[in-house]
Amino acid sequence: MDIKNIVLIGSGNVATNLGFACVQNGFTIQQVFSRNLEHGQELAKKLNSAAISSIQEISTKADLYIICIKDSAIAELSKNFRSGKLVVHTSGSVHIDEISEISPNFGVFYPLDTFSKEHKQDFKNIPICIEANTKQNEIILSGFASVFSDNITFMDSAKRAKVHLAAIFASNFTNYLYSVAENLLIENGVSFNIIRPLIQTTAKKVLIDSPQKVQTGPAVRNDTTIIEKHLELLKTKPELYELYKTISELINKSANEQL
Amino acid sequence: MDIKNIVLIGSGNVATNLGFACVQNGFTIQQVFSRNLEHGQELAKKLNSAAISSIQEISTKADLYIICIKDSAIAELSKNFRSGKLVVHTSGSVHIDEISEISPNFGVFYPLDTFSKEHKQDFKNIPICIEANTKQNEIILSGFASVFSDNITFMDSAKRAKVHLAAIFASNFTNYLYSVAENLLIENGVSFNIIRPLIQTTAKKVLIDSPQKVQTGPAVRNDTTIIEKHLELLKTKPELYELYKTISELINKSANEQL
Repeated sequence: MDIKNIVLIGSGNVATNLGFACVQNGFTIQQVFSRNLEHGQELAKKLNSAAISSIQEISTKADLYIICIKDSAIAELSKNFRSGKLVVHTSGSVHIDEISEISPNFGVFYPLDTFSKEHKQDFKNIPICIEANTKQNEIILSGFASVFSDNITFMDSAKRAKVHLAAIFASNFTNYLYSVAENLLIENGVSFNIIRPLIQTTAKKVLIDSPQKVQTGPAVRNDTTIIEKHLELLKTKPELYELYKTISELINKSANEQL
Repeated sequence: MDIKNIVLIGSGNVATNLGFACVQNGFTIQQVFSRNLEHGQELAKKLNSAAISSIQEISTKADLYIICIKDSAIAELSKNFRSGKLVVHTSGSVHIDEISEISPNFGVFYPLDTFSKEHKQDFKNIPICIEANTKQNEIILSGFASVFSDNITFMDSAKRAKVHLAAIFASNFTNYLYSVAENLLIENGVSFNIIRPLIQTTAKKVLIDSPQKVQTGPAVRNDTTIIEKHLELLKTKPELYELYKTISELINKSANEQL
C-alpha cells in the first residue's frame, strides 16, 4: 500500500513538526483535525490543508491517520473515531492497544525528540520508534518512517514507555535545570549568555562518553565546602535548596556505587 | 609586566586543560605542583615541565601562579605558600580574599566550563571571569586571559559564586539527569545512543531561546495521565520517583507563574 494522503489529528508541537516534514517529503496533508478550530486553521493554512474540528468530518479517504494529541485525549478519540485505514499515534507512553478500537490497522510512530512549533526539526537524525499490530502494517509504517529518518527502531509499548521516561529526564528535566540557571543569573544581573557555551559543552561531552564517566562538580568530588556555600546561597529558595541537596546526594551516591 | 613562566598548582581537570592551553599559546609551565607526585609527573611530562610535591619547592621565579586545587585545599595552601608575584585561583566559589595572604598581588581567573582530563577544551569561546586586587593586576590578568578567550568578564566574588551555582544546575546536575536516562535505558536493553540526538536538540534550543519558553513535556502541559504512568514505572526506585515528582511539580509551578 502506498501512502499519499494523510490526516493529521492534532495541531500542537508534534503535529506541526510532523506536518511540515510530511509536506516537505511530498505527502499531502488532507486534513488537520483540532478541537480548537483556530489552531487547526493556523496549521492547515501552512500545510495547504483543510482544518476540521469535529470527528465526524474526518475524511475516510486518507491512507494514514496520525494522532498527535495529548495522551489523555486519545481515550476519548478512541471512543468516537472509526476507520479501516492505518491509524498511528505518536506518543511515547500510550500503549498501542489504546487505539485498537479505532481500526483493524493500527500502530505507533514515535519520534524521539522535543518539538516546539517555533523550531522546525530536521527528522533525518531523529530516532523513530515503530510498532504495528501486524507484520504488514509494520512494513508499511517502517517504509513511511524511512522517508523521514535514517534511524528507525522497532520497539514494543512497554519498552517505548521506558524510553519515553528516560527522555523526560534527559530533555524536559534538563531544560528545567537550564531555566533554574537562567533565573539565578538574571536575578544577579548576569546574562544567560554566559552559561550557553557550558550547556553546549555538557551536551557534547556525552555524544561519545557515558555521562556517568564525565560527571564533574562538587557533588562527585564530595567537596562539602562548596556544597555548603551553595546551600547557603539558596536558603531563601527552599525548593531549589532541596533540589540542590537531593541531586548532589544522588550524584555522590552514584559515584560511590561506581567505586 | 609580561607573563612568560607559569607555575601550575594542581594536576586535576582544570590544571590539565589550562596547562595544555598555556603551552599551546606559547607560555612555559615551569612547574606542576601536586600533593600526589605521580599525578603531577604525569601532567608535567605532557607539558614539558617539572613536577614537585612540596610547597617549599615552588619556584620564586615564575611570573604567574595558577591555583587549580579543590576549594577545601586552598585554605591550607594559603597558610603555607608565600609569593610576591601574581597569584590567581580558578574557582567559581572561593572569595578572592581567601588567597590574599599568599601575595600582595592576587586575583581570580575562573573559566566557566566543565573540564575533564580526557577532553581537551578549546578556550576560545569559554567565558573567563576575572577579578584582581588592584586595577593594575586586573589589566595584567585580562591581558593574559585574552590570549585564551574572546569572552572575558570582570566579576566580583559574590557575583561569581552565584554564576558558579547556576553552572552547577546547568551542567553538573544536567549531566546527572543524562546518567539517570542512561541507566533507565540500559536496564531495558536500549542503547544510550537512542537518546543522544534528543540531548543535543535540547541543548541547541536554548542557544537562542529562553529555556522557560521552550519547556515541553507532560509536566508543563500538566498531563497527569503520563505523569502517573511514569511514577508507576519508577515505584521500585524511590529516589528517582521523588526526583521525578519534585521536578515535575516545579516545572508545573513555574509554568503557572508565567501565566
